[in-house]
Amino acid sequence: MAEQKATNITWHEGDVTTDERQKLVGQKGATLWMTGLSGSGKSTVACALEQALLHMGLNSYRLDGDNVRHGLNKNLGFSAEDRAENIRRIGEVAKLFADSCCLAITSFISPYAADRDGARKLHEDAGLPFIEIYVKCPLEVAEQRDPKGLYKKARAGEIKGFTGIDDPYEEPTNAELVIDTSTTSVEDAVAQTIAYLKDNGLINQ
Amino acid sequence: MAEQKATNITWHEGDVTTDERQKLVGQKGATLWMTGLSGSGKSTVACALEQALLHMGLNSYRLDGDNVRHGLNKNLGFSAEDRAENIRRIGEVAKLFADSCCLAITSFISPYAADRDGARKLHEDAGLPFIEIYVKCPLEVAEQRDPKGLYKKARAGEIKGFTGIDDPYEEPTNAELVIDTSTTSVEDAVAQTIAYLKDNGLINQ
Repeated sequence: MAEQKATNITWHEGDVTTDERQKLVGQKGATLWMTGLSGSGKSTVACALEQALLHMGLNSYRLDGDNVRHGLNKNLGFSAEDRAENIRRIGEVAKLFADSCCLAITSFISPYAADRDGARKLHEDAGLPFIEIYVKCPLEVAEQRDPKGLYKKARAGEIKGFTGIDDPYEEPTNAELVIDTSTTSVEDAVAQTIAYLKDNGLINQ
Repeated sequence: MAEQKATNITWHEGDVTTDERQKLVGQKGATLWMTGLSGSGKSTVACALEQALLHMGLNSYRLDGDNVRHGLNKNLGFSAEDRAENIRRIGEVAKLFADSCCLAITSFISPYAADRDGARKLHEDAGLPFIEIYVKCPLEVAEQRDPKGLYKKARAGEIKGFTGIDDPYEEPTNAELVIDTSTTSVEDAVAQTIAYLKDNGLINQ
C-alpha cells in the first residue's frame, strides 16, 4: 500500500470530456489528411508542417509509411482488401490522436475517394475536425522526381498496381486545401496549412 | 500559391528526433500498460491516472475497450488469433502515442504473458519506456464487484472463454508496478504510479 498522501490528485468518475481535455492540453485536436501521388511531396510537406507546429508549441504527430506500414499494418499486403484496411486503420489511429488533442498528420497516397471518405466520416461522427489536403502534382512532375525510383519500376512492370501508372488516383473533389507542389514551395505549403488552421479556429491566431 | 511570407517557419529535412520532440513538447513519452482481471479496477485507475497527469500539465491518453474495440479493432472477434491481434494492434498504437511524447495508458485485461511481452518488445526495440502495471485483485473480489455482470454470465455459461473463469489469466512476473486494488485506494494507486514515473525520470519532480 502507498504511504504517500495523495490529496493533490484531481479526478472525477467517467471520461475526460473534449472541452476539459482541450483546456488542460491547451489545444484542439484534428486530423490533417494528406493525399496525393507518390512523389507529390506529401511527406516533405507533412514533415515540415509537423516541425513548424511543434515549434509553435503545438502537439503534432505524423503517421506515415515508416511508422505505420512497418508496425501496426505490417500484416497487410497490397490486395484491394488490404489496401482498404490499411487506410481504415490509419483513419482510426489518426482519430485517436485527434481525440487526444494532437494535430495528427497522415501522409499516404490514399488514392481511393471511398477510403478517404471513410476516414472523414469516422472523424465527423466523433465531432473531430478532418482536413483533407490534396497535395497536387502533375503525374509527369511526380514521375520526373521519382525519389524512390518507383515510377521507373512501375513503367518497367516490376511493380504492379502502381497509383498513376496502372492503378487510378481518384482526385479529391471536396478537399479543404489543395496545394500544388509543382508551383508552391514547401514553406508556402506549410504557411497555407497553418493559415487554414488559424482561419478555422483550430489553432490560436 | 500562397501570398504570405513564411519566413518564421522552422524545419529541417528528415524526421524530428526523439530528443528534439521531447524538448518541443516538454515531456517524455511512455506506455503505461495496465493488465488485470475484469473488475480488477484497471479502467478506474487508468481513468483517474489520465486525469491526474492532464492536471499536472502532461499529455496523457487512454486506450481502452471503448475507443479501440469499437474502432480500430472492430473487425476482430474473440478467437485466439483475434485476441492476439487485438493486443498486438494496441501495442503498436500505444507505441505511436509514446513516440509522440504522450503518456499512453492502455487498459485491457491482456491475460497472456506472450502478448504483453510482445508489446513490451515493440517499445524496447524503439527505445520507448514500457511500464507494465499489474492491477492485481483476487478473483473472488473481482467477481463480487462484477460491475458489468460478466462473471455472472460466464458462470452461467453464457460467455465462453472468460478470463479467470474458463480461460487463464497469466499473472505478470516482471511488472514494473503491482497495485492490489483490494487494499489500495484509487488515489493511492495513482500516487504510486506517479511516484514511479518521477523516480524513473519519466516526468519531472
